This record gives sequence, structure tokens and C-alpha cells, in this order.
Amino acid sequence: MISIRKARTIIKSALAKGKEMELKPLSVVVLDAGGHPIAFEREDGASPGRFEIARGKAYGAVMLGLPGSAQMARAENQAYFMGAMNGAFGGKVVPVPGGVLVKNRKGEVIGAVGVTGDTSENDAEAAVAGIEAAGLFADA
Amino acid sequence: MISIRKARTIIKSALAKGKEMELKPLSVVVLDAGGHPIAFEREDGASPGRFEIARGKAYGAVMLGLPGSAQMARAENQAYFMGAMNGAFGGKVVPVPGGVLVKNRKGEVIGAVGVTGDTSENDAEAAVAGIEAAGLFADA
Amino acid sequence: MISIRKARTIIKSALAKGKEMELKPLSVVVLDAGGHPIAFEREDGASPGRFEIARGKAYGAVMLGLPGSAQMARAENQAYFMGAMNGAFGGKVVPVPGGVLVKNRKGEVIGAVGVTGDTSENDAEAAVAGIEAAGLFADA
Amino acid sequence: MISIRKARTIIKSALAKGKEMELKPLSVVVLDAGGHPIAFEREDGASPGRFEIARGKAYGAVMLGLPGSAQMARAENQAYFMGAMNGAFGGKVVPVPGGVLVKNRKGEVIGAVGVTGDTSENDAEAAVAGIEAAGLFADA
Repeated sequence: MISIRKARTIIKSALAKGKEMELKPLSVVVLDAGGHPIAFEREDGASPGRFEIARGKAYGAVMLGLPGSAQMARAENQAYFMGAMNGAFGGKVVPVPGGVLVKNRKGEVIGAVGVTGDTSENDAEAAVAGIEAAGLFADA
Repeated sequence: MISIRKARTIIKSALAKGKEMELKPLSVVVLDAGGHPIAFEREDGASPGRFEIARGKAYGAVMLGLPGSAQMARAENQAYFMGAMNGAFGGKVVPVPGGVLVKNRKGEVIGAVGVTGDTSENDAEAAVAGIEAAGLFADA
Repeated sequence: MISIRKARTIIKSALAKGKEMELKPLSVVVLDAGGHPIAFEREDGASPGRFEIARGKAYGAVMLGLPGSAQMARAENQAYFMGAMNGAFGGKVVPVPGGVLVKNRKGEVIGAVGVTGDTSENDAEAAVAGIEAAGLFADA
Repeated sequence: MISIRKARTIIKSALAKGKEMELKPLSVVVLDAGGHPIAFEREDGASPGRFEIARGKAYGAVMLGLPGSAQMARAENQAYFMGAMNGAFGGKVVPVPGGVLVKNRKGEVIGAVGVTGDTSENDAEAAVAGIEAAGLFADA
């Protein structure tokens, strides 16, 4: 389980990483093991649709058990499959990096983090920084 | 505009109010003037669907320009009307107290706060406390 | 057919009627005989969700061939039926006055007008004023 | 904020530009900074589905903070990503030119205009003309 305290640390540290890397304004969501939001923040200057994008990245990761990079690889090979996943999950799957699985010490998935705002790769880097700052394990 | 800094203050203060009142675990969302999430937190022990409920309270308030208490009064008189609103807004309208409009000094709506977890009246009280702690004006 | 020129007259005149009656800021949509938007305006100060409400009033009128007042009567007697209509038409039916059928000289439905912002009855009065100003016939 | 007065100027001027360029019948929507309609017009002779297309162009621009041309570039490179965006935003993203961001003097996004009816490039040109006629700044 990701506590609200850990979720706050994840968001705070992901945003700090974004500042350090001089990224565009970021938005960060932390989802639980069922894909439901625990916490979310959107920085000033980000476009209004960032919740849906951040959640889509993290939701797909949790529901499929695949981080965004693996989803993107699948999409590159089989776009219609990821399109079908999007439909099957009510439009809530966004298959690109920045959707990062959160694991505990035993390697069990306990949630996911979704970051959006800069390039997908930079988004993922900020997500990983956030997860590790909370003493948890990232699978990007 | 509600800055992310103000949104954090709203959430922190609403949750502190909940603790002070000894409420059940709360979830709090802050939406902008277009109904889009700026920040959200769900306390440990809250049920997983709380984002949708909190957002539904705040979203209805923004989109209709009516706080949750006024929506509830309408629903009590004309249940089918609020049912139709739920349909018109894609299922995102939850017409009970705890959806509170956020106004600026001029009385303009700049967003809304949705709180869920305890009774609707207690939820609304926590929302108001959060909004006022941020130096903004609540219409519950 | 309602031409764009007539649609503009309807909106302009409905808004003028609202001003004359000292109503709250109004939003007005004109739909064609298929329920599709021809023109829409939302006055400054109206809440952001007014397009969905205005369209819902007019859309239900066109699709069911019943003005808002008749839909409301049905909803008062059989709320579940109008709830089902809402679902059947993808959430786009709002069964209250302010959804007014537009007819030609022969009594054929050529579209509908939806007005929202004040009480449902006042909304309907503004819609009728707009339709008549365009030389068309209103069934409210 | 885009006032209804400015929105009318945008639409009138975009349609005039279309006439001047001898384009097919155009449809023009103006959305606020939250993606909600302020005004819309569909010229006689346009097909009935034009509201959804115009809104889709403008809605995607607001929600993603990217004009239609940038969305199209992304779609050309990563079709599945823009497909996922369409799902994430309930089918309301149409990633082609003709969705143009409206900015104020400070460069802040205050809404978007969507034009449809002719080629995407011509649609965008008409949108830009409308925005500039209202004294605002276009990002196409």
C-alpha cells in the first residue's frame, strides 16, 4: 500500500526533479494497486487536461501490469492492440513513458505514478525520482 | 486562478479541519474554473472511489454555478432534473453538500472544492475551512 | 430549415428579451431538425456548463418531438421514463421548460431552441421571443 | 477571458475570411480556457456534424496546450498517442490544423478557436484571421 504520506513525498520529489532538470510544468498522479487516485498535483502553467493524461499513463501501467515504456513498445508493434486497450478501459490508457509501476521490496506492484508535461522520457525520469525518494521501487 | 500553492493550503487545511472535528478519513479535490483538477488527496482508510465522488461534487458546482447544497435542494424537488444534469455532464455531477464554490474578492467563481468521507454537511464544513485558510471565499 | 441568419436573429432576440426581463445571464442554442447545433451563445457571467444544459433542453425537444414543458410533465409522472430517455440519447436530454420546438407555417418541426440561465419558465419565455422575432412559430 | 463580444467578433471575422478566400461553408466555435463553448456558428450548407469537429479541434488545443498543427505532427509520428488522447478526453480531441490557441498579451492561453469546413490549413487561416480581428493572439 502507498500511504498518503508516501504519495506526498513522491509528488514533491518528482516536481523537485522536474525543477532541477528545468522541465516544463509537470503534473503528477499517484494511483493505488486498483488504479484509483491517492494524490495529484498540477503545477501552475500546465494545460488543464493534465489530470487525464497523467492518470492515463499510470492507469494503463497498473491495469496491464506494464510500465509505459513496455506499453509504447507494444503500441509501436501493434497499434490496434493498445487502441483496443484504450477502449476496453474506458479511454483511460495512455501508452507512453511516464507511467511507472511502483513496487515494494518483494517486487509486488502496489500502485503507479503518472507524470506528464515534458517529453515522455523526462516525465518518466521525474516519476522514478519521486518513487525512489519515497523508499519504493520504480519500474519505468 | 487558484495556484497550486493555494490548492495545497486548501487541502491541508480541510484535512486538518477533519482531524479537529474527528471526521472519518477525507478526500479533497480542488478544481479550476473550468472544472479541471489542480490537486487531490485521499487519506488512508478512505474507500478507493473517493476521487470520483469528490470531483463530482466540485464539478457540478463549477459547471452549474451552484454549490452542493443548492444542487441538493433542486434534487429534492426535481430529482429527474439533477439526474439529467448527471447525464449531460457525463456522469460527473454529484449534487450534495461538500461541493463548494471558490470565489475571489470580486465574487467571481475561480474554482471549486469537493470533499467526501463523512456526512455531507461535515464534508462541506471541512471544505469551507480549507478555502478560508487560503484567503479565498467559500460559497457552500 | 433554420438558416444561420434566422438562428442569429433567434439568439439576439432571446438575449434581448432576457435583458428586458432582467434575467440572469442566458445561454441560447439553436438546433436543426436533426438535433445538431447551428448556433450558440453564452453571455458573460454564465457558468461554463451552459452549452450542455441548453443543448439538452433543445435536443430532447427535437428527438422526442415534445417541448420541455411536456417532457417535464412526463418526468413528474414517470421519472424513470425520462431517465431512460436521458440514457438512450447519451445523456443529452434535459426535460424542463426552456426547450422549445421551432415550427414553420405548416406546423412542421424544423428545429429547437434551448435557453438556460434563469428559472425554466423565464428561459422558455426568452426562447419564444427569439423564435417569434425570426418569423417562426414556437411550441414551448 | 474571452468575452461574448470578442467571441462574436472572432466568428464574424473568421467567416468573412472564409468568404474572401472563397472557402466552403465554415463552422466556427470559440471555447474558454477550460474548453467550454462560448459561441458557435455553422454556415448554411455545412454538414450537420460540424459542431463536434470544430469543438474537437479547439478542445484538444486547450486541454493539451497544443495547437492543431502540433497535434497533427504528433499524430503523424505516434498515431496511437493521439488515439489515446481521444479516449482520455471522451472522444473530444480532433488533432488537425484548424484548432488554434487564443492567447492574451502576456502569452497566456485564454481559450481556443476551432474551424472546420474547408482544408485543415484553410480552416486554420480563417481561425487566425478571426482571432486577430478581435485584438487577440493566435497560436495555430
